[in-house]
Amino acid sequence: MDLACLEQKFSEPMNHLKASAIREILKFTADPSVISFAAGNPAPEAFPVEAVQEIATRILSENPIGAMQYSVTEGYVPLRENIKKVILSRDSILKEGDDLVIVSGAQQGIELTCKVLCNPGDTVLCEAPSFVGSLNSFKSYGGNLVGVELEEDGISLEKLEQALKTEKNVKFLYLIPNFQNPSGRTMSLEKRKAVLALAEQYDFMILEDNPYGALRFAGEDVPAIKSLDESGRVIYCGTFSKILAPGFRVGYVVAQPALLQKIIVCKQCSDVHTNIFSQMICSEFLEKYDYSVHIQKLREIYRHKSGLMLEGIREHFNPAVSYTEPQGGLFIWCTLPKGVDMMEFCSNAVKNRVAVVPGSAFMIRESDPTQSFRLNYSTPADEKIVEGIKLLGDMTKSL
Amino acid sequence: MDLACLEQKFSEPMNHLKASAIREILKFTADPSVISFAAGNPAPEAFPVEAVQEIATRILSENPIGAMQYSVTEGYVPLRENIKKVILSRDSILKEGDDLVIVSGAQQGIELTCKVLCNPGDTVLCEAPSFVGSLNSFKSYGGNLVGVELEEDGISLEKLEQALKTEKNVKFLYLIPNFQNPSGRTMSLEKRKAVLALAEQYDFMILEDNPYGALRFAGEDVPAIKSLDESGRVIYCGTFSKILAPGFRVGYVVAQPALLQKIIVCKQCSDVHTNIFSQMICSEFLEKYDYSVHIQKLREIYRHKSGLMLEGIREHFNPAVSYTEPQGGLFIWCTLPKGVDMMEFCSNAVKNRVAVVPGSAFMIRESDPTQSFRLNYSTPADEKIVEGIKLLGDMTKSL
Repeated sequence: MDLACLEQKFSEPMNHLKASAIREILKFTADPSVISFAAGNPAPEAFPVEAVQEIATRILSENPIGAMQYSVTEGYVPLRENIKKVILSRDSILKEGDDLVIVSGAQQGIELTCKVLCNPGDTVLCEAPSFVGSLNSFKSYGGNLVGVELEEDGISLEKLEQALKTEKNVKFLYLIPNFQNPSGRTMSLEKRKAVLALAEQYDFMILEDNPYGALRFAGEDVPAIKSLDESGRVIYCGTFSKILAPGFRVGYVVAQPALLQKIIVCKQCSDVHTNIFSQMICSEFLEKYDYSVHIQKLREIYRHKSGLMLEGIREHFNPAVSYTEPQGGLFIWCTLPKGVDMMEFCSNAVKNRVAVVPGSAFMIRESDPTQSFRLNYSTPADEKIVEGIKLLGDMTKSL
Repeated sequence: MDLACLEQKFSEPMNHLKASAIREILKFTADPSVISFAAGNPAPEAFPVEAVQEIATRILSENPIGAMQYSVTEGYVPLRENIKKVILSRDSILKEGDDLVIVSGAQQGIELTCKVLCNPGDTVLCEAPSFVGSLNSFKSYGGNLVGVELEEDGISLEKLEQALKTEKNVKFLYLIPNFQNPSGRTMSLEKRKAVLALAEQYDFMILEDNPYGALRFAGEDVPAIKSLDESGRVIYCGTFSKILAPGFRVGYVVAQPALLQKIIVCKQCSDVHTNIFSQMICSEFLEKYDYSVHIQKLREIYRHKSGLMLEGIREHFNPAVSYTEPQGGLFIWCTLPKGVDMMEFCSNAVKNRVAVVPGSAFMIRESDPTQSFRLNYSTPADEKIVEGIKLLGDMTKSL
């Protein structure tokens, strides 16, 4: 069977789905001489290595069969309870009548939400730009993905209402309200309330993705949209990827039970259940270690690293380049002046041995116009941040 | 938002997808006084606990960041190499030009294959009965699922060709050729060759699911369909669930690269990558421990347990009840005489504190007629096998 014959067999959405542009860029970063601001990995010093060593060893000694045997699709019961107790109670995420299931990273929660709600052609609204992994998930179900301009304080309400009036079968609005990926921006409380009111008015669901919420190192917490939701319209995704270990692929979805039931049935035929050993480790970490102290430590790490990067930008970047000053999370979003070829700038950066992600990777269609690129400060070592930003800064000066 | 309003929002396939009937039965088995022949879990004594303890502790001491950080979607490179070297080379599974990617259990390989190939309404052919988790996967993409009668030596070729002549857009045929779940039957070499020839003639793919292949305790190995495949029509799924630890959710897909590329893109927006810590454990297990010795041990365990169950059946069952004598795997398939109410028999069994799975759970539609039920011998302890089979036997005598 030749390739042309095989390609004819692929399902329709496969024609629109490409490997993420970030992955292509990350290939260059395998070269240790390239300074990478392109990843989104937690800082190595953010991993609670000793705690995980202690917990993993103890679990394998006390309950090895439990850590290796099949488990239930909903997730490890003590983990579900500990998430409710230690994480969700702080922010009133769990509304009366809601429940929580464990998924294999928030990515799976996002994918399954789309699978449960969307027929091919149904509309998914999202911030433009937004997280490419989620956008690809929506595309993989043949969704009609519609981007709505992102402003300094969150999605444009005007443009959102415009889209709601013109687009058909809007199933849900996808939002990353805190320290958004890629923009680093945080949605204001007013806008959170407004999108919830629009959800009621136009009858759609909201998928709230909050991977970075705990990593606030400046400013004041803004309530989760889920915490304001009185009618069960919000589906909330959380994750251990940024607070414990992304390699474990443990996340969770909070929603009303009737929706969770569908997610569970879909998860059952997707991966049966999430790795149980890692679920047990996450659970013990919440139960036996001081979560607040740990989060405080992470905030210090990212406050320091973002500060270092922003300092370099202020010192070395051409003032014509604008940039966000995030209050948390992992990313800074830089925008080049009009007339500059952003893709060429990013290519030249790699040639100069600094990798950044071109903003087009986060647009609904990669061809959508953008002058921006994304910088990550969590992954590189401090001296690499200083060195790389100086190099990028010199490039911006010759624009 | 009330429930009726929410239910209107669900995607079309959700209307046809129900939680597996097995799960409902397994609820009863939480009661320790119920003897469960309903599960499909490996025997507790089959887990290489000491090896996993040694490996996990070493990995977390030598490379903790590697075990906790984000990894690549294709899978941990040493694991991919070790699977090729230690497992696939034995059976000539990896054909020239093929490659392998890691997935979160074979279940994910099955789901992603369906996602990559099927538009809603496309036809998936499968053995009837077949594994309910896979059937639900196919249903979850709106596939037109068509069952083909399973005979003693595998799928009926006559019925298969009939279906190929009448069904439209047949994308693939799903097969579990070794010690099939639920029937325990093994497909003959002749039939393996014949379905491959039909795949050429009628231009469809074959999804070969082989979770139990290594667990042969009687008879001679039959070559995998993949090993006979010269034209890249076969997609092969393997797993560590039955040979190491199902709780780790580590499996793999072998196929031609153009198809794997699509699976990788879909996996990326499904769970990014499979739990890396467990991938590293699986890899080290293949590399540092004697795989042949381990498999030999598992075969002894299941030879013993299946023998015990078959002995009980011969001694206690009404001779009017027929049953398969598997040469490997985890299941025995019993068929009640015509006229007996199979569902009532299974309900009565639970009342007598023995759980079995009614055959209808494995039919394409649960309403499809069947007189069979599935017995599992891997999970219960030896004395429970003896006791439970005696109880079931007494029930069959009063039929």
